Amino acid sequence: MIQNYELFNPTRLIFGENRIEELSDFLPKNSNILLLYGQGSIKKNGIYDKVTNILKDFKYEEFGGIEPNPTYETLMKAVDLGKKENINFILAVGGGSVIDGAKFVAAAIPFDKGDPWNILKANAEVEISIPIGTILTLPATGSEMNRGAVISKASTKEKLAFLTEKSFPVFSILDISVLNSLPKRQIANGIVDAFIHTTEQYMTYPVNAVLQDRFAESIMKTLIEEGSEFYNNSENLEAGANLMFSATMALNGIISAGVPTDWSIHMIGHELTALYGIDHARTLAVILPALYLEKIDEKIDKLAQYAENVWGITHGSKKEKAINGIEKTEKFFNSLNVPTKLSKYNISLNSTAETIISKFKQRGINAIGENGIVKLEDITDILTTAWV
Amino acid sequence: MIQNYELFNPTRLIFGENRIEELSDFLPKNSNILLLYGQGSIKKNGIYDKVTNILKDFKYEEFGGIEPNPTYETLMKAVDLGKKENINFILAVGGGSVIDGAKFVAAAIPFDKGDPWNILKANAEVEISIPIGTILTLPATGSEMNRGAVISKASTKEKLAFLTEKSFPVFSILDISVLNSLPKRQIANGIVDAFIHTTEQYMTYPVNAVLQDRFAESIMKTLIEEGSEFYNNSENLEAGANLMFSATMALNGIISAGVPTDWSIHMIGHELTALYGIDHARTLAVILPALYLEKIDEKIDKLAQYAENVWGITHGSKKEKAINGIEKTEKFFNSLNVPTKLSKYNISLNSTAETIISKFKQRGINAIGENGIVKLEDITDILTTAWV
Repeated sequence: MIQNYELFNPTRLIFGENRIEELSDFLPKNSNILLLYGQGSIKKNGIYDKVTNILKDFKYEEFGGIEPNPTYETLMKAVDLGKKENINFILAVGGGSVIDGAKFVAAAIPFDKGDPWNILKANAEVEISIPIGTILTLPATGSEMNRGAVISKASTKEKLAFLTEKSFPVFSILDISVLNSLPKRQIANGIVDAFIHTTEQYMTYPVNAVLQDRFAESIMKTLIEEGSEFYNNSENLEAGANLMFSATMALNGIISAGVPTDWSIHMIGHELTALYGIDHARTLAVILPALYLEKIDEKIDKLAQYAENVWGITHGSKKEKAINGIEKTEKFFNSLNVPTKLSKYNISLNSTAETIISKFKQRGINAIGENGIVKLEDITDILTTAWV
Repeated sequence: MIQNYELFNPTRLIFGENRIEELSDFLPKNSNILLLYGQGSIKKNGIYDKVTNILKDFKYEEFGGIEPNPTYETLMKAVDLGKKENINFILAVGGGSVIDGAKFVAAAIPFDKGDPWNILKANAEVEISIPIGTILTLPATGSEMNRGAVISKASTKEKLAFLTEKSFPVFSILDISVLNSLPKRQIANGIVDAFIHTTEQYMTYPVNAVLQDRFAESIMKTLIEEGSEFYNNSENLEAGANLMFSATMALNGIISAGVPTDWSIHMIGHELTALYGIDHARTLAVILPALYLEKIDEKIDKLAQYAENVWGITHGSKKEKAINGIEKTEKFFNSLNVPTKLSKYNISLNSTAETIISKFKQRGINAIGENGIVKLEDITDILTTAWV
């Protein structure tokens, strides 16, 4: 069953050792730059000094303090600064939150149709976006090489995504020196995030897209092996480089070309983060096993294929393989100290399910996942299964 | 051992069923188009009618007759036509030869530093190139999504390559309906060509680029399985689609990112085509087994890894695995009716080796392959091993 697709990704990836030093080669001449960053880790690990030392040859303003799950409220302050200073290029230095935030700021500055929140809330078209370059400091979200961003609104506890080709970064520098100073929790979150990006584009139903499936399985195997190695031995920069490339390839459009995708785990996970501030990756790790168990019949072919090709499980029925593969996945997440049970978090099961369902209803969403296989009423079952 | 790289590929791939019908959506408004095609197969299979029916809403000129291994002599006539008609967009409809030819024409029309042959012969910089769109009619070379082209000069029997980011097609339409009418010989050549593009970027020495290796192995396995299936059963368009995507991914920059590459097989093969007109893919099929046997010690780690991961050969020493893997590769080519012995062609062994060596010497080339492991004197041994 051949599915039509477009594959387009104009981001230039600049990968390897000491690549930040080349930053000025990639910045447009006469740039008036807005430097965006997060909550200060780049000031501790030396990246801020490296970058601003290069930027002193350019006109630039800086805006720090973008939080994990970047908020509309914070980002609108950067939008005001960017407008005031007439900036024409944005340099995002950080992980997925800073890069996602930069995509919003880049689209919001020239946005002239009211509140830029409508880009997320009402799918308002992004006609112009200020060009972005990024220096990635954490392998995880893939935002450095894709057209998507997820922004939260603190006041309404909403977490929404927008996608536009205008948001592709012009360049992204993946300098492996940034891997030296990552906290273990962030490494683990990054591995899990990239892994579940891959499963969202794979664990649906087979359409005989043989190469895309093999690429996805390659990414998952590499995240398991090289991600675990880097988590346990963060001096192994080769493993870190393999993790970094895998996380980028997990969400740059290649493995989703011509295959059905799911994204129901992300949709539920986003609500958990919006409601309770649980780390993005950790919400996904809790939902994945429960959702796959609840939808095992619908996803049986791909779950069995996954168990075989990623985990080497060759014995048993399809269902036995599928269950075994889900268990291996949970153990993998747990080995990174990422919990897979919702009861680990201090929340109420019943009210959480009710709140999520009512939020989806408000947005007119009746079902999620490939072919809408996850109905709203399933969410209660999924969260219950995820509980213990 | 981490190798730095840039990964950049702005070509938009438009893949699937009935995509040619969407051509006008991707052509710039006010285009003054030069339509380029080959030796007439598109007039027999209906693609020409489909395309010109869309182009009638645009201003366009056409130039047909581009040969396999497109020649400077033929292409310069298209350059003259393009200049005369002031064209501002090139639409290439064909296989790799037509697309490579289009890249040369696009660069040669605005070239103002003497003979455009210098783009190939003297690495003259391509400062401007006319934008190109392509409609691919044969999965093989990958030219539809890369920045390279290979052009021959009939008068001097040279076959040379040039590479520039200016040459990336703006879009490439991969409409699987073109797979309906391919001659078996062209399907086989395409599979072998794509396969050896992959080996040239893989069969060197390990640098722990785990994901790139897995991607390359995924492409090779898919070409073996799905390519063979489509060769034997050309009604299986799903297999054809998998072959088509694999051939594109084999040479679009991803699998060569951060790994050493070889290309010695191509360099020798190009000379065989330039001298005797042997089909490009067929020259590669003859050289590959002989070159790998001659350089088995230098390539032993990757040859053994290839044998294991692509062919499932788990028994024996590294050398035994390597030899076994090379034999399997030969059998695979032979199963597509592609010979792997040079004596199948009506040429003289000794004078061929001498001629190729002297041509390399004239161009100042002393050694080819990764780290220059193939010395000029090795070429005689390789051709001798390739003979029977």
